[in-house]
Amino acid sequence: MKNEVLLSIPIEKSATSKITNVDFENLTFGSIFTDHMFVCDYKDGAWQTPQIVPYGPIELEPSARVFHYGQAVFEGMKAYKDEEDQIWLFRPDENFKRINKSSKRLAIPEFPEEFFFQGMKTLLQLEKDWIKKGIGNSLYIRPFVIATQGSVLASPANEYRFMIICSPAQAYYGGEVRVKIAEHYSRAASGGVGAAKAAGNYAAQFYPTNLAKEEGYQQVIWTDADTHEYLEEAGTMNVFFRIGDTLITAPNDDKILDGVTRKSVIAVAERNGIKVEVRRIKVDEIVKAVKDGKLKEIFGSGTAAVINPILGFGYKGEKFELPKIENSYANLFKETITKIQHNEAEDPYGWRYKV
Amino acid sequence: MKNEVLLSIPIEKSATSKITNVDFENLTFGSIFTDHMFVCDYKDGAWQTPQIVPYGPIELEPSARVFHYGQAVFEGMKAYKDEEDQIWLFRPDENFKRINKSSKRLAIPEFPEEFFFQGMKTLLQLEKDWIKKGIGNSLYIRPFVIATQGSVLASPANEYRFMIICSPAQAYYGGEVRVKIAEHYSRAASGGVGAAKAAGNYAAQFYPTNLAKEEGYQQVIWTDADTHEYLEEAGTMNVFFRIGDTLITAPNDDKILDGVTRKSVIAVAERNGIKVEVRRIKVDEIVKAVKDGKLKEIFGSGTAAVINPILGFGYKGEKFELPKIENSYANLFKETITKIQHNEAEDPYGWRYKV
Repeated sequence: MKNEVLLSIPIEKSATSKITNVDFENLTFGSIFTDHMFVCDYKDGAWQTPQIVPYGPIELEPSARVFHYGQAVFEGMKAYKDEEDQIWLFRPDENFKRINKSSKRLAIPEFPEEFFFQGMKTLLQLEKDWIKKGIGNSLYIRPFVIATQGSVLASPANEYRFMIICSPAQAYYGGEVRVKIAEHYSRAASGGVGAAKAAGNYAAQFYPTNLAKEEGYQQVIWTDADTHEYLEEAGTMNVFFRIGDTLITAPNDDKILDGVTRKSVIAVAERNGIKVEVRRIKVDEIVKAVKDGKLKEIFGSGTAAVINPILGFGYKGEKFELPKIENSYANLFKETITKIQHNEAEDPYGWRYKV
Repeated sequence: MKNEVLLSIPIEKSATSKITNVDFENLTFGSIFTDHMFVCDYKDGAWQTPQIVPYGPIELEPSARVFHYGQAVFEGMKAYKDEEDQIWLFRPDENFKRINKSSKRLAIPEFPEEFFFQGMKTLLQLEKDWIKKGIGNSLYIRPFVIATQGSVLASPANEYRFMIICSPAQAYYGGEVRVKIAEHYSRAASGGVGAAKAAGNYAAQFYPTNLAKEEGYQQVIWTDADTHEYLEEAGTMNVFFRIGDTLITAPNDDKILDGVTRKSVIAVAERNGIKVEVRRIKVDEIVKAVKDGKLKEIFGSGTAAVINPILGFGYKGEKFELPKIENSYANLFKETITKIQHNEAEDPYGWRYKV
């Protein structure tokens, strides 16, 4: 990874800061943004000089292709501050690789590595007061790319905007989560864009998720579109199942996002001697396991919550509750990963990235 | 359908018109827009007063959900002017119903019928000089809805914008079209959003279409994501096959758009005594038919081109050419529908809508 300063990003500083008006003890996720943002436009076949400017509205033609044809991809990352005021990122190389993989699948030009890292580091240094110390506190970072060309011809745009915006975040507690296992609706097709962090993948989930909420669930675990027999992911989280003492999760394919937290969980599990099986999982297998008392845990993994325990699930009209558990894998993974992120533990994996 | 003026839309007129600068003989599809646009915002749980304002850029928060989670749907329509300067639409009730069907699937609030029709009629009266007479000429109309709320929480927005923008169009000639039949990539999942005119459905097709273009094809005909054995649609067009004298097209389901031109073609065919089969079609069936000399025509149907003949296709490394044909169904449908649209023929179907 490049750590040297190779590029100096022009900065237009905000005249005032909003920071004094922010109640850092009562943050709603993703609703307040810092004073600056990173912007880089693509035109004439190249990414232009990136810059950092005051955070504020952007102007687009009503015909901008992002509005009509959905060329839009994003990433979710977090910055942490340790007790010595040092700022850290967690495996940002994975996010960089993935946003370009997403872009490629949506026919968006890939973004230069140097612009991504220098842009992010410069922005984080400028916004360092927005990153609060303490386990749970972080600055949520949202890199994204949108097609800006003003024309409703249905083809890839020739103008884009890459941006990074930042929002202060507290420990994410999603409440008690019970999930509905999808029986009719689907998130992704084989050969589709499910493995990309494409904007359109999220809108597609809202309506079926609303239906699940009406039945008393908080989220949906998606199954394969063809048979609805195999478990996939939860839309904003990858999903893990613990049967006995074995941890099972679905393999990455073109329908399942290659989650950074997911792969970190697998690495922590293996280092702690936990048996991990990355394989296709039938819904029937977990239904049988819960009935036999062998299904000990289900949890989601993702950047926002790190680990989100799932207390029960519904499938074909039946509701299943998981037993309460001491020494859960969920806790082990959450604590291990969170401490590495905040520089409160050794990092034998080389995941921490100094800003 | 409501024809009475029930609602008066406030109009802010443009100080100048761009129309004198437009070369109506050399238009690029979807790149030039008229002087005004229709705008209606949704907030506080309701669609607010709609208005018509000068066409121009819109301002959005960088955190607007359309950029991140793809809540965006649209329609494509055309207005025509007859020799008596009367303006006509073609089956606008179908577009109205479909945009709300798309919105519902993407958890976007449905738009009021009166706002849709009054907004469109008022806008078209204002822009009447942009609609040129003569078969082929039209004003392309793009209604669309985007999520505007500024927050990156992954849930349905509580603020939206509905807009209508208009772009003058000439007869659309797509050039000689040969298509690749999809063998690996997919457009839509069962239980997904393929039947919605969702922005994200289009971006998902660009990369596989680029790959097909590198092989010498202009478009892709999508097949079912699971087996790639059944023909679906071409992404911006529904597809028809003529085997012998029978016309065959795939049924609407949750993967295939309920095309307005598609259903008009079926009605014209039936009225002209042509046998129509709306059923699943195997790729193998059309490969066998072309080898037996029985596949007489393939064509796409859609608002932009009305009917787009397809001259050949590629599948599993083999390329197939269709024979030249006199008295094609494609010509019959294109001429019949186009003349009805331009008020140059009787309309026994009741499709024309007076503006």
